[in-house]
Amino acid sequence: MTEIAQNSLLSEPTAALMARRVATIGPHSPLFYNTPLELVRGEGAWLTDAQGRTYLDGYNNVPHVGHANPVVADAVNRQLRTINLHTRYLNHMVVDYAEALLDTFNGELDRLFLVNSGSEANELALRIARQHTGNRGILVSDFSYHGNTSSLAELTTGLEVHEEFGSHVRAVRIPDATGMDAQSAMALRDRALAEVDAAIASLQEAGHGISASLLDPIFSTEGLLNVPSGYIEGLAQRVQAAGGLFIADEVQSGFGRLGNHMWGHQLYAIKPDLVTLGKPMGNGHPIGAVITTEALLDEFGGRNMYFNTFAGSPVSSAAGLAVLGEMRERQLMTHARATGEFIADAMREIAKSSPLIGAVRGQGLFFGYDIVRPEAPGQPHPVAAKQLIELMKDKGVLISRIGRDDNVLKMRPPMVIEREQAQLLVDRLAESVAEITSGLS
Amino acid sequence: MTEIAQNSLLSEPTAALMARRVATIGPHSPLFYNTPLELVRGEGAWLTDAQGRTYLDGYNNVPHVGHANPVVADAVNRQLRTINLHTRYLNHMVVDYAEALLDTFNGELDRLFLVNSGSEANELALRIARQHTGNRGILVSDFSYHGNTSSLAELTTGLEVHEEFGSHVRAVRIPDATGMDAQSAMALRDRALAEVDAAIASLQEAGHGISASLLDPIFSTEGLLNVPSGYIEGLAQRVQAAGGLFIADEVQSGFGRLGNHMWGHQLYAIKPDLVTLGKPMGNGHPIGAVITTEALLDEFGGRNMYFNTFAGSPVSSAAGLAVLGEMRERQLMTHARATGEFIADAMREIAKSSPLIGAVRGQGLFFGYDIVRPEAPGQPHPVAAKQLIELMKDKGVLISRIGRDDNVLKMRPPMVIEREQAQLLVDRLAESVAEITSGLS
Repeated sequence: MTEIAQNSLLSEPTAALMARRVATIGPHSPLFYNTPLELVRGEGAWLTDAQGRTYLDGYNNVPHVGHANPVVADAVNRQLRTINLHTRYLNHMVVDYAEALLDTFNGELDRLFLVNSGSEANELALRIARQHTGNRGILVSDFSYHGNTSSLAELTTGLEVHEEFGSHVRAVRIPDATGMDAQSAMALRDRALAEVDAAIASLQEAGHGISASLLDPIFSTEGLLNVPSGYIEGLAQRVQAAGGLFIADEVQSGFGRLGNHMWGHQLYAIKPDLVTLGKPMGNGHPIGAVITTEALLDEFGGRNMYFNTFAGSPVSSAAGLAVLGEMRERQLMTHARATGEFIADAMREIAKSSPLIGAVRGQGLFFGYDIVRPEAPGQPHPVAAKQLIELMKDKGVLISRIGRDDNVLKMRPPMVIEREQAQLLVDRLAESVAEITSGLS
Repeated sequence: MTEIAQNSLLSEPTAALMARRVATIGPHSPLFYNTPLELVRGEGAWLTDAQGRTYLDGYNNVPHVGHANPVVADAVNRQLRTINLHTRYLNHMVVDYAEALLDTFNGELDRLFLVNSGSEANELALRIARQHTGNRGILVSDFSYHGNTSSLAELTTGLEVHEEFGSHVRAVRIPDATGMDAQSAMALRDRALAEVDAAIASLQEAGHGISASLLDPIFSTEGLLNVPSGYIEGLAQRVQAAGGLFIADEVQSGFGRLGNHMWGHQLYAIKPDLVTLGKPMGNGHPIGAVITTEALLDEFGGRNMYFNTFAGSPVSSAAGLAVLGEMRERQLMTHARATGEFIADAMREIAKSSPLIGAVRGQGLFFGYDIVRPEAPGQPHPVAAKQLIELMKDKGVLISRIGRDDNVLKMRPPMVIEREQAQLLVDRLAESVAEITSGLS
């Protein structure tokens, strides 16, 4: 998920900044790249470092409608100069934003809680689920991450936490049908659903019952899995039949990123009870949300004095509204689909040219590239993945990697990436793959 | 803490807004006042409602350096138009802010984690404490609130939550020596410290041990208690001697609000292990922090891949820096002390005029007024407190109430309140007290 930084190649001013950083926020706060990058300016999908070098951002989803987006800046600035208070006084901004956001859910889910981050959203969703069901059990994927609080640390398997894995949590292996024929995929699905049955039964036998499943619909941390058709529907059916709630963690899959749908759960024939939002929601302004039904909101609201000081403020709402406005005005979901197809086509061509590339994963503007051992196809090659990321950076394009084997290239540019920039991304990718491949022999 | 809203007296447009609000964020999201107030504009300590009426803000601490502060707006706007990214790339803003903030801690605590809210700060502080001690037990005050996550709900006693009180939590009654002579106060302190001893022993006997005490140094939710001299020192000594950490929740007491000190824990001869920050930190921009030692940061950072997407961004850091800059430029802590003394003197005069007023509480720019039964001095009178708050609103001044009996008037204006505004506040308070008092007979 992140790389460990080395200081040796930093310029003198950047090394000085690094030393001051270590002396304040400490040496463990993660940094990308062997030689950390000091970024000082952004515009659209471009970023500029302290030495004046320009990079194409092929990684960051938080600046959804572009780095330094002036429409978002104007909206925030205007509101900051007007009023910014909590929701215990009335103000139209939070209502305007809530309506605009709920409009994208087609009436299936029509109430929301606003919070300040994806972690706060998943925390609240789990509180709602535990209280609704009276159960404690939770079903997650066995290589996942949903936030940094205590109760989310207890169900974290996708990165290092010191907390013990919760006795009330079951992690199931999400099936990946990449490269399989239909029959094998169905067999895999059925085996994986049997694992879901066993996990639910185990929670029930242990006396925890099941309060919820908590899953990212596109399994980003896991490496952008290709789940067999019917698996998610089968899982949701089983969880809901056992009395649990289905929580879709759309911190990464939401806001049109996937091109065909505003929300990742719409890939499947399911009805989530709770959808959690974060990262791109305010283009970097700290906002998150839990989208739910009137019944669940009413139940939780009636039993708890839930208040969140910062959330739903006029400024946070203005940032969220500006993001939705930019998406609509610039038709960014349609753009993500078209640009995403262009990139994916090119990636499939590049894959044919090198034994380093296994599967091409993802959809819309969210891509993964399995980097595998040429001598042992199918075997992950994290070292080559790391080399590719560093080489791409040297060529002026920022990407990263994910997956349980740290071998899946992760490409997820701001939604405003232009066609010429997409061309640059795939050109640099083709060059990098060719260079690393030729170095193999 | 909050009032239940009634709709009957709303103007037609405000009633329409209220209906849209209920249909999106729901009917339970708390609102102040019998007739909720729709606020549309702010400047300094002034607020304006939708009907164009102006109010003096005697309540809000989040807009620390004033509503619609142009210095904060400029700083945020400039940074939004430059770059806003997470801390996995280097940027000087987070380091500049971290240094400026840590400078206010006089070297005792010299590292920090940045987060997005007070809830996230207390969550993280408890994770650090549990991991450091290997214990689960927590000591809190028996009428307190520290945030809205699952593990904070389990230790909440100051407002309604549906979660059961944690078996690993002990809530002690914080002693209030208001009106006592020195000898009685010392006896009260000793009894209260015996209760602390018993709580720690009980956690140890139950096998939880003690990971931390989590306390607001000025006990705001509890009603601004006057703790007997030596009590906090005795509690901290006992917790730390038992291996636990002392967490000062400075979400309300911090940032110079108390006039004499930048931080509330500096009222006492103690050294907290962790200090948590929130509300006023970004003048409404969602920021929080955990301030700690190098040793605790290193231990936690080495064991956990802790990352927080929004926290420490250049924009959040710019907002935080602008708040510290405004405090310094305008000498707001000194101003809080002087203006606070002026208000407190006036409050003591008013108190003499009415049997409704019991103790005058607080310090700096944070005041409490015990509202008591004239026929039974010392008995709380929440109905009269509520009447006073509504009457103050009718007279154009916003305040609220706190305390286990909901009878302590809470006054906590933005730090920029001017002398003339302070005069207006006490004039309206005198009138309101006189009117309610005369209505008693």
